[in-house]
Amino acid sequence: MKALRKETPAPGARYVDVPMPEVTSHLVLIRVKAASFCGTDLHIYSWDEWAAKRVKPPLTFGHEFAGEVVEVGEQVERIRPGDHVAGETHIPCLECYQCRTGQMHLCQNVEILGVDRDGCFAEYVAMPEVCCVTTDPALPWEIATLQEPFGNSVYAVSEADVMGKTVAVFGDGPAGLFATAVARAFGAAKLYCIGMQPYRMELLRRYQPDEVIDAGCTDAAREILDRTRGSGVDVVLEMSGAPAAIHQGLRVVRKGGTYVAFGIPATAVPIDFADEVIFKGITIKAINGRKMFATWEQVQNLLLTGRIDLRPVLTHTFPLAKIDDAIHLLDHGNVRAGKIVLTP
Amino acid sequence: MKALRKETPAPGARYVDVPMPEVTSHLVLIRVKAASFCGTDLHIYSWDEWAAKRVKPPLTFGHEFAGEVVEVGEQVERIRPGDHVAGETHIPCLECYQCRTGQMHLCQNVEILGVDRDGCFAEYVAMPEVCCVTTDPALPWEIATLQEPFGNSVYAVSEADVMGKTVAVFGDGPAGLFATAVARAFGAAKLYCIGMQPYRMELLRRYQPDEVIDAGCTDAAREILDRTRGSGVDVVLEMSGAPAAIHQGLRVVRKGGTYVAFGIPATAVPIDFADEVIFKGITIKAINGRKMFATWEQVQNLLLTGRIDLRPVLTHTFPLAKIDDAIHLLDHGNVRAGKIVLTP
Amino acid sequence: MKALRKETPAPGARYVDVPMPEVTSHLVLIRVKAASFCGTDLHIYSWDEWAAKRVKPPLTFGHEFAGEVVEVGEQVERIRPGDHVAGETHIPCLECYQCRTGQMHLCQNVEILGVDRDGCFAEYVAMPEVCCVTTDPALPWEIATLQEPFGNSVYAVSEADVMGKTVAVFGDGPAGLFATAVARAFGAAKLYCIGMQPYRMELLRRYQPDEVIDAGCTDAAREILDRTRGSGVDVVLEMSGAPAAIHQGLRVVRKGGTYVAFGIPATAVPIDFADEVIFKGITIKAINGRKMFATWEQVQNLLLTGRIDLRPVLTHTFPLAKIDDAIHLLDHGNVRAGKIVLTP
Amino acid sequence: MKALRKETPAPGARYVDVPMPEVTSHLVLIRVKAASFCGTDLHIYSWDEWAAKRVKPPLTFGHEFAGEVVEVGEQVERIRPGDHVAGETHIPCLECYQCRTGQMHLCQNVEILGVDRDGCFAEYVAMPEVCCVTTDPALPWEIATLQEPFGNSVYAVSEADVMGKTVAVFGDGPAGLFATAVARAFGAAKLYCIGMQPYRMELLRRYQPDEVIDAGCTDAAREILDRTRGSGVDVVLEMSGAPAAIHQGLRVVRKGGTYVAFGIPATAVPIDFADEVIFKGITIKAINGRKMFATWEQVQNLLLTGRIDLRPVLTHTFPLAKIDDAIHLLDHGNVRAGKIVLTP
Repeated sequence: MKALRKETPAPGARYVDVPMPEVTSHLVLIRVKAASFCGTDLHIYSWDEWAAKRVKPPLTFGHEFAGEVVEVGEQVERIRPGDHVAGETHIPCLECYQCRTGQMHLCQNVEILGVDRDGCFAEYVAMPEVCCVTTDPALPWEIATLQEPFGNSVYAVSEADVMGKTVAVFGDGPAGLFATAVARAFGAAKLYCIGMQPYRMELLRRYQPDEVIDAGCTDAAREILDRTRGSGVDVVLEMSGAPAAIHQGLRVVRKGGTYVAFGIPATAVPIDFADEVIFKGITIKAINGRKMFATWEQVQNLLLTGRIDLRPVLTHTFPLAKIDDAIHLLDHGNVRAGKIVLTP
Repeated sequence: MKALRKETPAPGARYVDVPMPEVTSHLVLIRVKAASFCGTDLHIYSWDEWAAKRVKPPLTFGHEFAGEVVEVGEQVERIRPGDHVAGETHIPCLECYQCRTGQMHLCQNVEILGVDRDGCFAEYVAMPEVCCVTTDPALPWEIATLQEPFGNSVYAVSEADVMGKTVAVFGDGPAGLFATAVARAFGAAKLYCIGMQPYRMELLRRYQPDEVIDAGCTDAAREILDRTRGSGVDVVLEMSGAPAAIHQGLRVVRKGGTYVAFGIPATAVPIDFADEVIFKGITIKAINGRKMFATWEQVQNLLLTGRIDLRPVLTHTFPLAKIDDAIHLLDHGNVRAGKIVLTP
Repeated sequence: MKALRKETPAPGARYVDVPMPEVTSHLVLIRVKAASFCGTDLHIYSWDEWAAKRVKPPLTFGHEFAGEVVEVGEQVERIRPGDHVAGETHIPCLECYQCRTGQMHLCQNVEILGVDRDGCFAEYVAMPEVCCVTTDPALPWEIATLQEPFGNSVYAVSEADVMGKTVAVFGDGPAGLFATAVARAFGAAKLYCIGMQPYRMELLRRYQPDEVIDAGCTDAAREILDRTRGSGVDVVLEMSGAPAAIHQGLRVVRKGGTYVAFGIPATAVPIDFADEVIFKGITIKAINGRKMFATWEQVQNLLLTGRIDLRPVLTHTFPLAKIDDAIHLLDHGNVRAGKIVLTP
Repeated sequence: MKALRKETPAPGARYVDVPMPEVTSHLVLIRVKAASFCGTDLHIYSWDEWAAKRVKPPLTFGHEFAGEVVEVGEQVERIRPGDHVAGETHIPCLECYQCRTGQMHLCQNVEILGVDRDGCFAEYVAMPEVCCVTTDPALPWEIATLQEPFGNSVYAVSEADVMGKTVAVFGDGPAGLFATAVARAFGAAKLYCIGMQPYRMELLRRYQPDEVIDAGCTDAAREILDRTRGSGVDVVLEMSGAPAAIHQGLRVVRKGGTYVAFGIPATAVPIDFADEVIFKGITIKAINGRKMFATWEQVQNLLLTGRIDLRPVLTHTFPLAKIDDAIHLLDHGNVRAGKIVLTP
């Protein structure tokens, strides 16, 4: 079969022939119908510091996908050939404390699809049954693959209490776009979004926040404090990972409010615990992945009922073989895409 | 001044002259601009068993209102003449355990406006400062008075977790109508509403639930179980107080789900704790009033930003003197009103 | 092997020869070292109305046990021969909504060991791997078997917030005894226990509640209200299932407090929703079983560190063959045992 | 009257004559019976960078106290001369969002007694009625004054869930000592305490943690990870403010666990959000002060019932005039005191 491979510890990737995965035990073989491109994939493709430390080529990367089951291992019980499934990226050990107590998404021995083992940018992918989420055939493939990244934002917003509250979303990447959609859908009364990329800020507006603030030309924290008479907002959703956004988020979250930490900064960020955290009496919730599988239930409810429409975010589709063209749209100085879907 | 009085322990009420309230100490005198009619007022007007036991005529009844401050007692500090205010009906003692620990709305010594002391169906009403909620002048008076009953439903829905979940609302009275609006606004993915009155079920539809079920001609519980493949719903909001609805609600709430008890049945209801409660592992949250004043903040956020529009529920306005005409529309056999606003 | 069997739909049980269970697939074969006797077993033994409706003889009953693994099915992965295990009674389907979202103990298709399938009052029992909880060999067998019923109370108390609070425990059966121990260990500042049986009330005192009230000769609710200056207690743990205790519990839980419902009444109980539930603004948490497996982690922490000692409750041990003697001690009119452990 | 004054922006303090406070409006005049010495007072006495920035001499400092009411302002309603009271240090504005929504302790306009206005290291102190907490006369004065700092730790532990869990407390100052006592009383099953000062570690042992680790000669994080088989602890209570402790705390809190931030570092601490926070999926709760007044209710319950004994922590008593002797015991290189009580 064909797969997008990181073959050497260097930038780039090649779409080449590889052997089909074996399908034994708890594994499920899935024909990939759509996969989507994530920031993590960009790190691996570009081969930055993080990738060099974490990834061991050769590797098929990619972890967001949906597809049709074609074969199942002999111990598979729930999934059947023909099922439509999406993939939960966090492959849990099922035996550690977290796996045994309802926090499987924080497994101590987690393996990440497309990072620690061959991923889904390929014609076929093999997944453990536990990570195969059956998906209603009514969901188009290109939306079905977005359930995984969308789930991050659904989980992030669910952990705060935005119902009838004031909310600020930092970040105009897919996580920020999805969080904006979810915060609006979950009843945020006043919703401020902070972005940097003109293309992306246009996408943010599709979800009708009360205000989109361009952090490139405005002091976003000052703006939000002014609009809230100095009180700040009940909830901050930090979806960008930018150090400046982290400080601004801690500045605008009101005393006693909730700060959701999702975006991952590349380096350590000096935090003034006194003024940014403790005297504010805030709660910081760190979000990693999706609750397995409570978040997926919410995701499916929201998408199947049409409560949230992901199509505005999905701006481009490319064949896997044209990955370089896709990457081109994500140039940091001039981003011209929302979420990109790739097809084998 | 004129006031609607229950003068004797018998059905009816008269709009008569009474002395102006005195304005001392912590009291605030408010010129009533709009008041709204509640089920409690109907009990008092009709003089049913509950009213006969609880209310001591003569009494000016009515407890939902908004108006303009005209005078303040000498110990009033926050409120000023000219302020627009709405009234929090639960007058707390400020000294009991609940008042001291953030549950003022459940004060052990609570007095209810228009039940335990003279209310707001009058040209003027005197309220303790603590229960005067300042209201943005942008809010029309007839909407401002609805904040109190709307707040009940905001609090009820906020105590459940409806975000991306399946929800059933029982009851087509104002509490059910408002709860439907709030559940939709707070992200209920699948929303079933159960009513009885054709007029009211039309109003329910204005808030776009997924389904309105007429409990008069359908087994609502059966219907909901069928639609959820036997699982039931994540959240039940019981806003009717009808014993049949209570049983149906306990039947359709899923194992491990949340049941919010707001509607007040007139008599004891035999509960099968084994099958209706314990084996289901549910949480029952009893809601009485509004959180003081967190709920009011949500209410104002939702109304001022236009996230929720209460106008579909507000179907009629009458002068206080025409109370009998208003009552006429609420005949149990043929309800022809949503919420009714009265003006002095 | 030998097993205690309910052979016909009639009172009593016989200790007879039965075939060994087959050990296939996910099953684990355990040599029972200790089993404990529960109220459910008494229902089955006595063949009351509930048992007649639910149980289909012939059946080996009993569901609380600990033992040593002797053989595992071919798909068993975590458990190995020689492991010490205790049994989680609730056998989940692993596929329903609850099983997939962290509420496995409330599985829609749950099977109960010793009720829906052959149980542990036998020399050997076969359990699905998922329900085998590995247990530190440092725990004596007769304590290890008590983890399951003790877990009920650990879960019940954990769902309330007793830390530094006032608490009332209703019931002097094992669930009430364990709840008393747990509430004390979890920081209940003022702890009232309500019992009926002199023998059991002595056991309650072993866990040093502030007061043991004999409901047979005192109005327990009146007493608690007097001692709390009319406020009532922050938390009620209703572990008895007696209708009178339910009403008293709802009377003494303070406005805004938490009422944990664990005890199962035999018949419907008429509840005055207005005064017992809604105007009080309480939260009712229904507890069924143990959280899988967060509760088990707490149980093991508490027992292995010696934070809670279960030996005062474990008053008798009998061979399974002497079940009639054990039953004799549980005569409702004159209870003379705490928890009884049975050995094959 | 006499008062301990910071008269000039320089180290030291003098016990001098000052005018009696005026007692008007909502103020209550209290004869100070016992005051206790806090880290904040040490900052002010020593006149470090923080003090120089925040404090405006001349000022009577000190904020922890208990005493007897001698006079009340004309608008005081609840407090009466002769009442025993302790002081809540956070003086709220009663009008901001936080004050109106149950988070008075996080008031946007809070004034701190003994920092922003004259404090309690004096013969008399004037407090707003709202901050006077009536105290049972059964509580000795020197224990009554400790309610305020003890309340910090009660609140900190209450916000985590330590019941039957593994817990690590960082810090051997009074906050760490109290947190150890509270965590033990609230059911921590396995309790690790990390300290530095030999004198204080002896005090820690009085509350019977499972282990006291000397961070001066052991890698505390390594030790805790070893003892928990690499999993870490469910709850970290960071009561020290030392940057090294913050990093160790984030290292030992288990994935999905709770980290309570109470100790205040003097400078910014570089945080690796990826590995220390986000991939761990933890919740960070920042604690500032005491919940008003839910924490105080817990405090009084715990002390009056004798559930927690604060006497081991209270190691010294001095007259206010001997403040220099007290300070001497707190020399950072050789701490020889727990909590010090001062008397006018």
